[in-house]
Amino acid sequence: MITIALPKGALLKDSINLFLQLGLDFSAFLDKSNRQLQITDPTDTARALLVRAQDVPVYVEYGQAQLGIVGYDVLREKQPEVANLIDLEFGYCRLSVAVPASSSYRRSVELPPHGRVASKFVNCAKEHFDSIDLPVEIVPLSGSVELGPITGMSEAIVDLVSTGKTLKENGLVEIDILYESSARLIAHPLSYRLNRDNLNDLVAKFKNLKP
Amino acid sequence: MITIALPKGALLKDSINLFLQLGLDFSAFLDKSNRQLQITDPTDTARALLVRAQDVPVYVEYGQAQLGIVGYDVLREKQPEVANLIDLEFGYCRLSVAVPASSSYRRSVELPPHGRVASKFVNCAKEHFDSIDLPVEIVPLSGSVELGPITGMSEAIVDLVSTGKTLKENGLVEIDILYESSARLIAHPLSYRLNRDNLNDLVAKFKNLKP
Repeated sequence: MITIALPKGALLKDSINLFLQLGLDFSAFLDKSNRQLQITDPTDTARALLVRAQDVPVYVEYGQAQLGIVGYDVLREKQPEVANLIDLEFGYCRLSVAVPASSSYRRSVELPPHGRVASKFVNCAKEHFDSIDLPVEIVPLSGSVELGPITGMSEAIVDLVSTGKTLKENGLVEIDILYESSARLIAHPLSYRLNRDNLNDLVAKFKNLKP
Repeated sequence: MITIALPKGALLKDSINLFLQLGLDFSAFLDKSNRQLQITDPTDTARALLVRAQDVPVYVEYGQAQLGIVGYDVLREKQPEVANLIDLEFGYCRLSVAVPASSSYRRSVELPPHGRVASKFVNCAKEHFDSIDLPVEIVPLSGSVELGPITGMSEAIVDLVSTGKTLKENGLVEIDILYESSARLIAHPLSYRLNRDNLNDLVAKFKNLKP
């Protein structure tokens, strides 16, 4: 039986809708009273795991799930050894550099050398500032990154932006985009190559779907 | 003005109650409709930041907050350069090794060499297994660690246990305790040593409090 890792949070509803179109019903995960982390679809043909977004590639990398849905941002940050198969064309957002609107910086390169940048995406942030040869100190935060500039801890942040509402509410402006992100279908490389449990059939169906 | 970093989640209510006993009212953070991450107490003598538990030591380490409240588990895992001042005697839990009740392992040392251990506390877990000379592969997860053994991804987990309810619900049993944890008052070392904003007075008051 195929096991699929699904991400809690923003991508869950669209992910479950995609599988519904393929005849696999994991909508029990959307029930607010649900406490199960593992369910089998009513036709008994596939199992789904409900895990944190950043844990999806872990389950797929270790082969505990053959397929998973996760944002491209997680793949870029964690670099897991999984096959990145299909852009599912939902969950759009971008990883951006933002600064206080009151500051004079309007591009990443204008930031002061050895300044501080707060981010949950420490690897992506480091890669970006390395690529423009600007030495900065990355301050690793796990949430509410916008507090970095507000408290004066950092000159800038690197964070995901979708509507831009959070930035605006906190007096921040986007000055550079590192990359665009969207939901991806990923697979355990060996399972995919060996077509275990007819994985390729399911993947082929995904290619004909619309979000 | 003194700034205090308070942790979202399980320790928040008791933390706010402690400060109330000292005459500092940050109870606005407990209002479910609150969206502010930074508030000043009504007497205008101290500011509080509401951040994720693992970000508390970051704000304190960088001196953006002079004081913070955080679980000992976070300090052990992250080893931040902060002064660990007072055991506040609430938020008790323990970091434990747990395995499926159906397995035969009843101590960490009985686990198979080169087996897998899932954990959010990768540094603490590694330190423990290094100390007993047992080579294991730590699988880093960010949530729902109990899924590790359920899905067969790992033989064991290292996770926080308070009531033991989650373990029981998932058919797991605790076989070793790495350490006990509780809430701690931490300080920015330099601010504390130089007694900025009369920090020492506030810390002295803490020592006379009861949780």
